[in-house]
Amino acid sequence: MKSVGVVVEYNPLHNGHAYHLQEARRMSQADVVVAVMSGSFLQRGEPAIISKWERAEMALHSGVDVIVELPYAYSTQKAQTFAEGAVRILNHLKVDCINFGSEVGEIEPFIRLVYFMHTHKDAWDELVRNQLQAGVSYPRACMEAFNSLDQHDSILSLSEPNNILGYHYTKAIIDSDFNIETQTTKRTSANYHDPKVTDHPIASATSIRKKVMSEKGDLTGIKHVVPHVSMNILERYQHQYGTFHSWDLYFPLLQFEIERSSIEQLREIYECEEGLEYRLKDTISNASNFNEWMEALKTKRYTWTRLQRLLTHILTNTTKQEMKAITTEPLPYIRLLGMNPKGKQYVNLIKKDLECPLLSRFAKARGTMAAQDDRIGKIYASPLAMKGNIAALKRDYTMSPIMIK
Amino acid sequence: MKSVGVVVEYNPLHNGHAYHLQEARRMSQADVVVAVMSGSFLQRGEPAIISKWERAEMALHSGVDVIVELPYAYSTQKAQTFAEGAVRILNHLKVDCINFGSEVGEIEPFIRLVYFMHTHKDAWDELVRNQLQAGVSYPRACMEAFNSLDQHDSILSLSEPNNILGYHYTKAIIDSDFNIETQTTKRTSANYHDPKVTDHPIASATSIRKKVMSEKGDLTGIKHVVPHVSMNILERYQHQYGTFHSWDLYFPLLQFEIERSSIEQLREIYECEEGLEYRLKDTISNASNFNEWMEALKTKRYTWTRLQRLLTHILTNTTKQEMKAITTEPLPYIRLLGMNPKGKQYVNLIKKDLECPLLSRFAKARGTMAAQDDRIGKIYASPLAMKGNIAALKRDYTMSPIMIK
Repeated sequence: MKSVGVVVEYNPLHNGHAYHLQEARRMSQADVVVAVMSGSFLQRGEPAIISKWERAEMALHSGVDVIVELPYAYSTQKAQTFAEGAVRILNHLKVDCINFGSEVGEIEPFIRLVYFMHTHKDAWDELVRNQLQAGVSYPRACMEAFNSLDQHDSILSLSEPNNILGYHYTKAIIDSDFNIETQTTKRTSANYHDPKVTDHPIASATSIRKKVMSEKGDLTGIKHVVPHVSMNILERYQHQYGTFHSWDLYFPLLQFEIERSSIEQLREIYECEEGLEYRLKDTISNASNFNEWMEALKTKRYTWTRLQRLLTHILTNTTKQEMKAITTEPLPYIRLLGMNPKGKQYVNLIKKDLECPLLSRFAKARGTMAAQDDRIGKIYASPLAMKGNIAALKRDYTMSPIMIK
Repeated sequence: MKSVGVVVEYNPLHNGHAYHLQEARRMSQADVVVAVMSGSFLQRGEPAIISKWERAEMALHSGVDVIVELPYAYSTQKAQTFAEGAVRILNHLKVDCINFGSEVGEIEPFIRLVYFMHTHKDAWDELVRNQLQAGVSYPRACMEAFNSLDQHDSILSLSEPNNILGYHYTKAIIDSDFNIETQTTKRTSANYHDPKVTDHPIASATSIRKKVMSEKGDLTGIKHVVPHVSMNILERYQHQYGTFHSWDLYFPLLQFEIERSSIEQLREIYECEEGLEYRLKDTISNASNFNEWMEALKTKRYTWTRLQRLLTHILTNTTKQEMKAITTEPLPYIRLLGMNPKGKQYVNLIKKDLECPLLSRFAKARGTMAAQDDRIGKIYASPLAMKGNIAALKRDYTMSPIMIK
């Protein structure tokens, strides 16, 4: 059975995602689509709008055959670490190729750029270092360094977020010498860059979330940009849990946590660097909501998403020590979120050769990463518990993979 | 000017407290009553029903002339440490005597018992140790040891909570060789032991709080057991902040905190001993409210109040290290909560000889205790901030002492 892997967040799954799945299958001629999806907290340092279980269900109804979780230690990270973690998992799951969405839509520029960067590593490192010393943010430093390098035939714009991720998927595969082909699907619509949902059936996930939140959870305005099944699942979640998840839901907890923590404790948190702990403490007492606080907190030196990731790590009590322990050890397990019969057939086929156990029940997991993922699930559910739904706290622990007929 | 000191919590101030203040003034013939009052969290390991500012106001309207705060490092402690901290502060404020309420109502048994215990210290220590090894709680071990000692003429029942506190006030004064007389007011009414508010004008603070909470904040049922001014202030607080404070208000935060913390972090918390960290973690996910959790948590070895104090320290992130630093250093300041003109006259009189600064503005405070008290105030106000009252977070920091004409 031929398989294609995709790296996804589905926050929520929209028409553009459904199109990407079709294209990935068509281009690869694969029998099975294997998705690795961020769990509760995402790459931009945000809680997912609904839980991973419902997002997995959306995926299985939209063209995915097997879906597994990208653990927190990789999901809430800069592009490089995120991509390395995802590719590592897809390699364990023996995918033949990986298909990613990109602005450029051709695979050669990615491959050429990886090799180009290999041969220009020293010059690149120096350029980035100079930019960082001048006080600019890391992504911006990379872009400036990139633009300064003489590239000739390897023009790939790294100012586009999906090109950056695509570059890191390609680089991770080449650097690890994985036997995985890369393919890319062009993000067709200009509407991806539109900050608002328009009449067009394609809209970005960001604009979709913004629309839902600005209309206090009313879903009418996004009906034409998400598959029918996404709509149903969003409605069901809202009905069952009474809320969608956004930073606003967690802000009171974060505020409490920062008031409560000592400077020394904040300094132990992953990505709390260069005295940010003082800035956090100095600004928190005056903020009455998340956005207001972010405006007070932001600096030229750190991107909004870099700060959001730090805040996620504070909320989840993720220390430098814990992250180091997890990301330097071999992957201890892969958590299966769901599959359909074809996916199950594929899993049965690869299962006997797996170097890393594919877990159906979280209760079996042990070790640092398991402890982290258990905690993350509970913290994601905490606002639900505070509204009286105590069972939500144990959901991640007790759920079995979603099986679709 | 002659002065009498009282150690109080006023949670809330009721008719029994008003009677005690009258009696303290009458017995001592003092011109001025000086009160040291627990701040946001109390000896039994509970949040105060309303803030210290409103409780100070009640006091100034009920016979107190000067009121200062007993800092968290002493207020949320076992009887001995609580009493030592309070007596130390009253000594700084140069009171001539201390008057405490007690079940026995005579001062001689307290003094005799302190000397008796001095001469029987070794026997006492051994008896307590034996009891603790048998797995009973510390207060119970003390009581059993006490009953085993041959006391002859020093019969004072230490099974009564106010006798225990009185014993420790007396002991602290004698052990520190302070030039302070001790006096005691008999708690006259049997109604102190009634778990419910009755028709009688005297009721215990516990029964009053229980009545208010069980009637969802309705104050009608306590009107006859608290002074008119207490009633008005309680009503005003409820109107202004929308809630009274009880463990139920803080339970969601505590649950979040215990889910979020590692075993190692819990172990660093003050009073987290003998593997209690595992018990906390094991029981928290199933609890849907504070009382349910306490029922699951409690053991023969620890009293309810001992556990509540531990939970308070978890909520407030009070570590063993921090508590040791604060309780072993000289008292860095005394925070003035309020006074009337006569109290001001007294303060002006003693001010020039104070060894410990009497602070009117918290902004001036520095050091470990100041950092703790600042944090405690914010954590006490956190549920108010979560309901949208962000200003409440800064109240302790910005308030000036309450001045009564």
